[in-house]
Amino acid sequence: MNVEVVTIGDELLLGFTVDTNAAHLSRELAAAGIQVSRRATVGDHAETIARTVGEALERTGGVITTGGLGPTADDRSKAAVAALFGRALRFDESIWASIQEIWTRRGYTGAIPQSNREQAMVPEGARILTNRHGSAPGIWLEDERGRWVAMLPGVPREMRGMLADALFPILRDRVSGDARTVIRSRTVRTAGIAESAVADRLGDLARAVDGMPLAYLPGVDGVDLRLTTEAPDAITADRRLQAAAQSLHERLGPYVYGDDDTDLAALVLERCRERGLRIAVAESCTGGLLGARLTAVPGASTVFLGGTIAYDDEAKRGLLGVDAHNITEFGAVSEQVVMQMASGARARFGADIGIGITGIAGPSGGTPGKPVGTVWLAVDISGTVRARRIGVSGDRTEIRQRAAQSALDMVRRAL
Amino acid sequence: MNVEVVTIGDELLLGFTVDTNAAHLSRELAAAGIQVSRRATVGDHAETIARTVGEALERTGGVITTGGLGPTADDRSKAAVAALFGRALRFDESIWASIQEIWTRRGYTGAIPQSNREQAMVPEGARILTNRHGSAPGIWLEDERGRWVAMLPGVPREMRGMLADALFPILRDRVSGDARTVIRSRTVRTAGIAESAVADRLGDLARAVDGMPLAYLPGVDGVDLRLTTEAPDAITADRRLQAAAQSLHERLGPYVYGDDDTDLAALVLERCRERGLRIAVAESCTGGLLGARLTAVPGASTVFLGGTIAYDDEAKRGLLGVDAHNITEFGAVSEQVVMQMASGARARFGADIGIGITGIAGPSGGTPGKPVGTVWLAVDISGTVRARRIGVSGDRTEIRQRAAQSALDMVRRAL
Repeated sequence: MNVEVVTIGDELLLGFTVDTNAAHLSRELAAAGIQVSRRATVGDHAETIARTVGEALERTGGVITTGGLGPTADDRSKAAVAALFGRALRFDESIWASIQEIWTRRGYTGAIPQSNREQAMVPEGARILTNRHGSAPGIWLEDERGRWVAMLPGVPREMRGMLADALFPILRDRVSGDARTVIRSRTVRTAGIAESAVADRLGDLARAVDGMPLAYLPGVDGVDLRLTTEAPDAITADRRLQAAAQSLHERLGPYVYGDDDTDLAALVLERCRERGLRIAVAESCTGGLLGARLTAVPGASTVFLGGTIAYDDEAKRGLLGVDAHNITEFGAVSEQVVMQMASGARARFGADIGIGITGIAGPSGGTPGKPVGTVWLAVDISGTVRARRIGVSGDRTEIRQRAAQSALDMVRRAL
Repeated sequence: MNVEVVTIGDELLLGFTVDTNAAHLSRELAAAGIQVSRRATVGDHAETIARTVGEALERTGGVITTGGLGPTADDRSKAAVAALFGRALRFDESIWASIQEIWTRRGYTGAIPQSNREQAMVPEGARILTNRHGSAPGIWLEDERGRWVAMLPGVPREMRGMLADALFPILRDRVSGDARTVIRSRTVRTAGIAESAVADRLGDLARAVDGMPLAYLPGVDGVDLRLTTEAPDAITADRRLQAAAQSLHERLGPYVYGDDDTDLAALVLERCRERGLRIAVAESCTGGLLGARLTAVPGASTVFLGGTIAYDDEAKRGLLGVDAHNITEFGAVSEQVVMQMASGARARFGADIGIGITGIAGPSGGTPGKPVGTVWLAVDISGTVRARRIGVSGDRTEIRQRAAQSALDMVRRAL
């Protein structure tokens, strides 16, 4: 089944809002075997909305819109689509009652602004799509030839809830067993290896695996590799993806740290938890980012004890026990200092693992011998200390993120 | 001048990639007085690309595409648009030379894959748009009636560079002095006040200021208010926005911390730098996020000394000097503990200002008296300690971000 998506809103067209709804809709629909064949974005202009939805309807017979359902004057979707179907708008008492209830529940005691009555206007013959997260109901309109338009709100949370609760049940009935195929993807996540080196290692699998195209997605966490397949059903798709992912794992070995949404911080915490190891950190250039990564994971407190942000050299000495001599002699960004930082964190927090990071995040502070992007990492596991110098690229933000990710990867490999 | 934008790529249509290019293009063009009247997204299918670009060309006479210029077989934009203009593709030696140069510069010594020769194929009569950040050149094609298509790459960094370097100079010549209007916006940033309370305070300005619509953009940093205006020129637009922003500042008083891209961490660092004050932090639930916010700002080291991530209660006692009694009696999330955390950080780092944060980020750990989202903040400025309890909403990530932002806002107000 093919559908088209029309996202509506001046905010989108002016670029003030990035259209995340479009991607979410496409992904969710594809996973359910419904293909988005084309997308359009138009402003809050009734005539353009009607024309664009009308053309899309001609091509596919099914259109999903987002946006323009709110109470204000620039929300014109409903009237435009009602006109396209030749339907009048009528006031719906039950919707109005539920809007009043929402206002009361939120503690509002005055008279509800008249503009909100607009939200209770629905095209004749429409089916209402309930909105768990807001007051604007969605609309399903269908003509005698079975062509349909589903209108969802523009607020992402409301749109997502309505898609799951109200629209999917209707659409699933329409996807016939025969014509249905699903599109699924699997991401293999790597760290510590460049995109070109990944391609070299993959050799004949560099472009496609078992006929599935391979997309390279380099980011601050490393290079993600995405496999995509279309299959008659989810089980077949998953089996193919599993086999292909396995081939990538084999070629890339220790550079692979997980699949799909695997977070390296969560993985490191899990490995430590299994072995009863506790972590402390000592951060200079990352300034708390590594601690923030680790504590972003719910339940981190069973493994992560804390850390010292030793941004100042005095803090490195006084709070981590780094030798003043090492800082003077080798510099704050050096093997000697990072090793003492890692060990200092381990000792002071009474942890099993200490992680140290010191580097030059830029934009200033670089020298020919230690350019911006130079980072020293150290991991002290129960007294055995390893250190490593890396050179990372990007701006200040990227350098800091890559440094934190590299430190986590160093712990993963050490365990 | 009106143009349409067509973004091309299966990745976009399948929803695997969020189309950030579309918003960037719209915003940049609007600021230059060029209006995007409609946007479409299509997959890597030559016929659909040609049809969609052709229809857009009929409506506006100017179309900008992104994506589909790469070396692989699924990059079909160039051939599709060349066919639409009735032009053949020819091999361009100079482009090929520059591609070879890029490969050499990257240290590649072998033969360049034949597929890369595709990138050197350009439609007859095309003007080349140079790509500062990658190997795929952009294309400008124009017919005898002055209708044009500009083809940009899909990689955001390459697209942005090419837009600025190569496409804007061409487009600016085409925007005639008379027909030109610019659309500009100004954002007023607030912290520590809810969206509905902002609207109440604004009263008659809640929906529009001097005829300019007001958009409410609530986020983890607070509620941003965006004013947008269309004017004959940039100076007029900026004057209107300035006056309207001033009205908002007056109504909202101390809740406003800045305009546009103002970052609260940068602002706090600047205020401290002016007064010669130095900061240290003690973080529990935020786990380093506040330190990371402060050190994200280049030059933070002149003000920020460091911090202690005291995730574990033992660290709060041993490294920050929090009384064990206070933790037992009042809990780790309490006024007593947060005040000692702030003072402990100040003392141990030898700073002027100590900031303490302790709270319940969830998803577990909440109690009826201290539900998830309960956060205690404290600021110690030269021995004067203030503490404040706040309740923040959202998931673990949002609660942590809001807690860090609220702590920064508390310092801003205290200064």
